[in-house]
Amino acid sequence: MNQDKEVEPLSRRFGFLIELDKLKSVMRQSPLIDRSRRENSAEHSWHLAMFALVLSDCAKEVDSFHVIKLLLVHDIVEIDAGDHPLHAPGADSASIEQSEQRAAERIFGLLPDDQGRELRKLWMEFEAAETPEAIFAKSLDRLQPLLINTLTGGGTWTENGVNEQQVVERYGPVIARGSPQLWEAARELVGAHFSGDVARRKDD
Amino acid sequence: MNQDKEVEPLSRRFGFLIELDKLKSVMRQSPLIDRSRRENSAEHSWHLAMFALVLSDCAKEVDSFHVIKLLLVHDIVEIDAGDHPLHAPGADSASIEQSEQRAAERIFGLLPDDQGRELRKLWMEFEAAETPEAIFAKSLDRLQPLLINTLTGGGTWTENGVNEQQVVERYGPVIARGSPQLWEAARELVGAHFSGDVARRKDD
Repeated sequence: MNQDKEVEPLSRRFGFLIELDKLKSVMRQSPLIDRSRRENSAEHSWHLAMFALVLSDCAKEVDSFHVIKLLLVHDIVEIDAGDHPLHAPGADSASIEQSEQRAAERIFGLLPDDQGRELRKLWMEFEAAETPEAIFAKSLDRLQPLLINTLTGGGTWTENGVNEQQVVERYGPVIARGSPQLWEAARELVGAHFSGDVARRKDD
Repeated sequence: MNQDKEVEPLSRRFGFLIELDKLKSVMRQSPLIDRSRRENSAEHSWHLAMFALVLSDCAKEVDSFHVIKLLLVHDIVEIDAGDHPLHAPGADSASIEQSEQRAAERIFGLLPDDQGRELRKLWMEFEAAETPEAIFAKSLDRLQPLLINTLTGGGTWTENGVNEQQVVERYGPVIARGSPQLWEAARELVGAHFSGDVARRKDD
């Protein structure tokens, strides 16, 4: 048996996959839609991959497998660096970036070198948001909590006292850059939420 | 604006994606590796997609995007039909299949027709386990809880009084059919677990 070639890299890959279990315990600020608890970053990543599977034709010419790969890996660094909510006041983005870079080095470094480099490159591509796939992945990563907030009495907006104009400023450019069509639909939901239409319709 | 063509299908797609949130509340029997709670089917699906991303070269000639799509959708029917653990005694497989078929009809039926058919076809392909991709996806779906059990004092094996021979019978054929290489590595971990090597090594 060629142990050097096969068995050693498999044990490193198992080690990485085992480490990933920790992402199930990284809690986001967003609630589940039934408001029973907050969402964790592992199930959020699955949800986003499903958004990509179902909505990729809303973007102009993206490779949907590549979008899904970006979304599967995009939060892995949070195992060490934690989640940093969009509406957190006074976040130090340089220090967050530094701790995420260290996390990427350690966690993707658990893999055999070639694979570690490949997955780390995917994460860096997502962060840089320059390729069409990364731009669209970022768009979905913003759309999903927006939908959740409109369905949970404002969710993190209500918690953080975020008004309609701030929502439009914080979500609009990112979602519209990936897909004007998705932003048009999302903008309508935001408007309905803040004008109370949703609540009124429920009471009818 | 062509509302019929664009806006209506988008609202059905949003409706489906919102419904998927419920998979985050379907609990499996497997624990998290830190044993803090049980795993849910949404985060399990993300974990499996990562297994596929990292281990696809252990299978003979599979399209890894297709494997990932199968794994992303494979548990969605559990929103209605619940999770059915491998070691549950006396499960009525005909009645489970019937309730899963009804669930597939309802949940994938939330999507625009073409997309609903496409995703339902993926789920049926996974269930049938006849294509190379479905065979490999099933193999990973068996490997992941096996790894977890070896890391959590036996996990669901200990809970259900499952012995080494039963583990080999229940996991071996499914994992080996997708990848003899993965089963070889998994078999070693199972042997070490039941011979107490893991515990002894921890005590050293």
